[in-house]
Amino acid sequence: MKDNGELEKLRHTAAHVLAHAIKEIYPEALPTIGPTIENGFYYDFYNLQIKEEDLPKIEAKMGEIVKANYQLKRLEVSKKEAEALVKTNRFKQEILKELEEGEITFYKQGDFIDLCRGGHAESTGKVKHFKLMKLAGAYWRGDSKNPMLTRIYGTAFKSEKDLKDYLKFLDEAEKRNHVVLGRKLSLFEFHEESPGAPFFYPKGTIIFNELVNFIREEYKKRDYKEVVTPLLYDKSLWETSGHWEHFKESMFIFKVDNRDFALKPMNCPSHCLMFSNLAKSYRDLPMRIADFAPLHRNELRGVLAGLTRVRKMSQDDSHIFAAEDQIEGEIDDLLDFVKLVYEKTFKMETEIHFSTRPESRMGDDKLWDEAEKILEYILKKKKMKYKISSGEGAFYGPKVDIHVKDSLNRLQQVATIQLDFQLPLRFNLQYDGKDGKKHVPIMIHRAILGSLERFIGILTEHFEGKFPVWLNPVQAVVMNLTSDNLDYAKKVCKRLKEEGIRTDIDDSSETIAKKVRNAQLQNINYMITVGDKEQQNSTLAVRTLDGKVKFGVKLDDFIENVKEKIKTKSLQC
Amino acid sequence: MKDNGELEKLRHTAAHVLAHAIKEIYPEALPTIGPTIENGFYYDFYNLQIKEEDLPKIEAKMGEIVKANYQLKRLEVSKKEAEALVKTNRFKQEILKELEEGEITFYKQGDFIDLCRGGHAESTGKVKHFKLMKLAGAYWRGDSKNPMLTRIYGTAFKSEKDLKDYLKFLDEAEKRNHVVLGRKLSLFEFHEESPGAPFFYPKGTIIFNELVNFIREEYKKRDYKEVVTPLLYDKSLWETSGHWEHFKESMFIFKVDNRDFALKPMNCPSHCLMFSNLAKSYRDLPMRIADFAPLHRNELRGVLAGLTRVRKMSQDDSHIFAAEDQIEGEIDDLLDFVKLVYEKTFKMETEIHFSTRPESRMGDDKLWDEAEKILEYILKKKKMKYKISSGEGAFYGPKVDIHVKDSLNRLQQVATIQLDFQLPLRFNLQYDGKDGKKHVPIMIHRAILGSLERFIGILTEHFEGKFPVWLNPVQAVVMNLTSDNLDYAKKVCKRLKEEGIRTDIDDSSETIAKKVRNAQLQNINYMITVGDKEQQNSTLAVRTLDGKVKFGVKLDDFIENVKEKIKTKSLQC
Repeated sequence: MKDNGELEKLRHTAAHVLAHAIKEIYPEALPTIGPTIENGFYYDFYNLQIKEEDLPKIEAKMGEIVKANYQLKRLEVSKKEAEALVKTNRFKQEILKELEEGEITFYKQGDFIDLCRGGHAESTGKVKHFKLMKLAGAYWRGDSKNPMLTRIYGTAFKSEKDLKDYLKFLDEAEKRNHVVLGRKLSLFEFHEESPGAPFFYPKGTIIFNELVNFIREEYKKRDYKEVVTPLLYDKSLWETSGHWEHFKESMFIFKVDNRDFALKPMNCPSHCLMFSNLAKSYRDLPMRIADFAPLHRNELRGVLAGLTRVRKMSQDDSHIFAAEDQIEGEIDDLLDFVKLVYEKTFKMETEIHFSTRPESRMGDDKLWDEAEKILEYILKKKKMKYKISSGEGAFYGPKVDIHVKDSLNRLQQVATIQLDFQLPLRFNLQYDGKDGKKHVPIMIHRAILGSLERFIGILTEHFEGKFPVWLNPVQAVVMNLTSDNLDYAKKVCKRLKEEGIRTDIDDSSETIAKKVRNAQLQNINYMITVGDKEQQNSTLAVRTLDGKVKFGVKLDDFIENVKEKIKTKSLQC
Repeated sequence: MKDNGELEKLRHTAAHVLAHAIKEIYPEALPTIGPTIENGFYYDFYNLQIKEEDLPKIEAKMGEIVKANYQLKRLEVSKKEAEALVKTNRFKQEILKELEEGEITFYKQGDFIDLCRGGHAESTGKVKHFKLMKLAGAYWRGDSKNPMLTRIYGTAFKSEKDLKDYLKFLDEAEKRNHVVLGRKLSLFEFHEESPGAPFFYPKGTIIFNELVNFIREEYKKRDYKEVVTPLLYDKSLWETSGHWEHFKESMFIFKVDNRDFALKPMNCPSHCLMFSNLAKSYRDLPMRIADFAPLHRNELRGVLAGLTRVRKMSQDDSHIFAAEDQIEGEIDDLLDFVKLVYEKTFKMETEIHFSTRPESRMGDDKLWDEAEKILEYILKKKKMKYKISSGEGAFYGPKVDIHVKDSLNRLQQVATIQLDFQLPLRFNLQYDGKDGKKHVPIMIHRAILGSLERFIGILTEHFEGKFPVWLNPVQAVVMNLTSDNLDYAKKVCKRLKEEGIRTDIDDSSETIAKKVRNAQLQNINYMITVGDKEQQNSTLAVRTLDGKVKFGVKLDDFIENVKEKIKTKSLQC
């Protein structure tokens, strides 16, 4: 209960009301823990077998407890007295054991009592606007060796309006759920044979490749050099890089030739191996090495989720090796790159988080001081607004993370810029300075889109599957009114394809209304109808996704217009 | 000794002469086996510690044996008598044990005798033109659990001229060695941390990506659909596909979530998993799924060689799912694709090998009959010349392999077209036919470039590192004569870059002669010199790799010319 805000207290009380209700209906269930979370709370119970259908019944019982308006009484007892109070609940006993000697607090409402540090509304009557959301399974303390518990998620708000707004938002988010849209639009799919690794269908692959092309075009302008690197490396490399000590749990490790090898979770060590052949002197710096290699991270099976939490991903990754006096210029350029992608291209608002040294880290704290100082100095000099995420840095250095607000106002982490004084030392990287002496370069780890998989998930939800024309797998569809117009439709389709516009033809015998409906379901940007009039005048009738139709459009004009929109990455219809 | 040709006999005899010489100089060494190979022979010895420096001494001893002109006498003995003859050599004993009862043959020259099926010149005197090439280590019977032997490679020819031509060819091949050129031109490198997996530097990555783009452009014209797929799959997938039974030894297998997973060595099963979501009816066929995913094969450490034998590779891979009556059309298109790439683009001669069912295979022999019949029927119908590689097919079907002749007239296997009736059955793939019934599609596995890694190796040697302009990492370099011309040089360089021509500037204070020499060492296609005259007239002096120089070239004309060469993938200077 770090936050003592009113809403926080309300939700914490709602969790107690839920546990109280459960104990009344299912006396044999054992409450374990019930924290608040973003947008609500949950409570985990042992020995509780229920289904989604049981939630209304539990909500009704909670309503009764709210109506009874029990006071939440704080009891302060000794550890010994506390032991007596939890003697029938081995989970609470375990929690109690870990508490220090001295005063232990319980909260009591009616005849329900719970071991709790506090932070509550005065009485259960305050919890007026609540809802139980869903059920899930969860291991006690998140450990798969422990018993499986039943988790009930719920939420509570201060007003009925806040609650309704939230439920509406969830509805909106569900409509945009990228896993559902990805399946509906044939963008990507998941298979049990490869958990956490998306299969991008042809349509999803077009989006994937367009994003890579976008970044590659910028690389040409910004003098990045792309490389292709192995995925599998000997343990010795991971020991040098520090991953073996700090990241091993997240790596796929196995024996090859009786040596330990791991699939790479990050590209940095590969690029360190290449550095000394690519840059020998200060004249070669900054050296910006870019890599789209697939990365593998051994995420727990249970946390895998759509394109958001995956085991296989590709990043628009780069490592910039620079002299110390080049860092500011490089970070300037990176913030400009971020602006180009998010503000200019996707018209998304950004928010900057400055993440400092984490607990599990490597290297001398003096170097951390210096790295953090430089990053913060640049942010301040550029008068950028930023939040501090204390302890959220990478294990090798502090970082600036860029979050964007999507069309549902959700913050999504995307780009990252990380300053690293450690790896170049560990890999013994050097270059010849202007002064004729050897110098150690500084390394900037950075990604602009981040994981391409995750970013495609974010974009799918942001655009609700209605991609701007440059990204859309199918940009136009040509539909003939009658079979008399088929040849003309084919001619138009062929020409559009030749001009590089991704075009389908719908020459089925359906009505135009049905064809339009099918095209709308696929979110195709331009629905082109051709009937006798269009055929005679060599024109098109063009319908856009906003429902507008333009008649008598000349083919050349249409092509020029669409190509311009593609070239400028326009978001307009 | 399948081939009883004279050269074969000569080389086989040379192997005996080698073993004879070794026994005379190193009596404690045990000869094991000594077969002929392409371009020569080798002999493996146990208990022989020698260095490259010892080869001349051994050659001299072989010379004496040749001069002595011993007859090669054939001895026919019983198995029991044979046992007595090999009693001091446990390796020969092992070979003998595996021979059937009955007549065993030995060959004797002077006092050297060797267990041998035969195929020899009459006397050692015939082996006049021979040379020992190199030493290598090799396990007895290729198994790393067995003792390590010393292998001596040698060659022999009928005439001194043939031998000299061959040695000259080797010299030429060594000059073109892609590993050496790759390092010299900064194209790629290998590191002990990831054996068998190339690191493509920025310059090599440009070639890699240009090849991918070339193939992708063809995919657009030929209606292929690219996908992005996972690399890691559960054992159950490999059991379904038959890889677990027929290809397991070549796979990297490890535990994830307590299940067996493997890195994919081929893309076919991934595409089978996707098929049912991509094609439902005969209208969706043929469905051509393309994939550039990195593949991993657990090749033995000892056989890894440059880009030729690797553990990680990417193929321009595709699987075509087709109805039976579409196979001929598809193979027609594939042979056309092959022609476009090799004959029209790279101007390389092709040779076709038809590979039939291997010993380790899956599925009903009736299906094999049918698949082989169809492939051969098409080859015959198209009046194509082809060789039969008996038993060289894939474990799931027969194939047509395309070999090309490189600039040293070496045959290199590149493209492959494989007809598969088995996997669609095993994956239970179906589509709705015109007749309203369910049908099983037929699968064509095919790659045009094959492994991109291997193909880049072949191209590097074929062009001796002098890549045609469309593939060359650096296409032009601008060199200023004096510092007065630097601004003009920069202007030219900037313009060329804007036009998409990969251009460097050499603004060092070196002489033009030195700058040209440096550019030639890098095999840059166009070396542009700008001095006062060029600057005044807004022209260029352009030197090509054939040594020709054109003066007074207008910048616009140069750009147009180079862009045309790039667009048409011209091989001209």
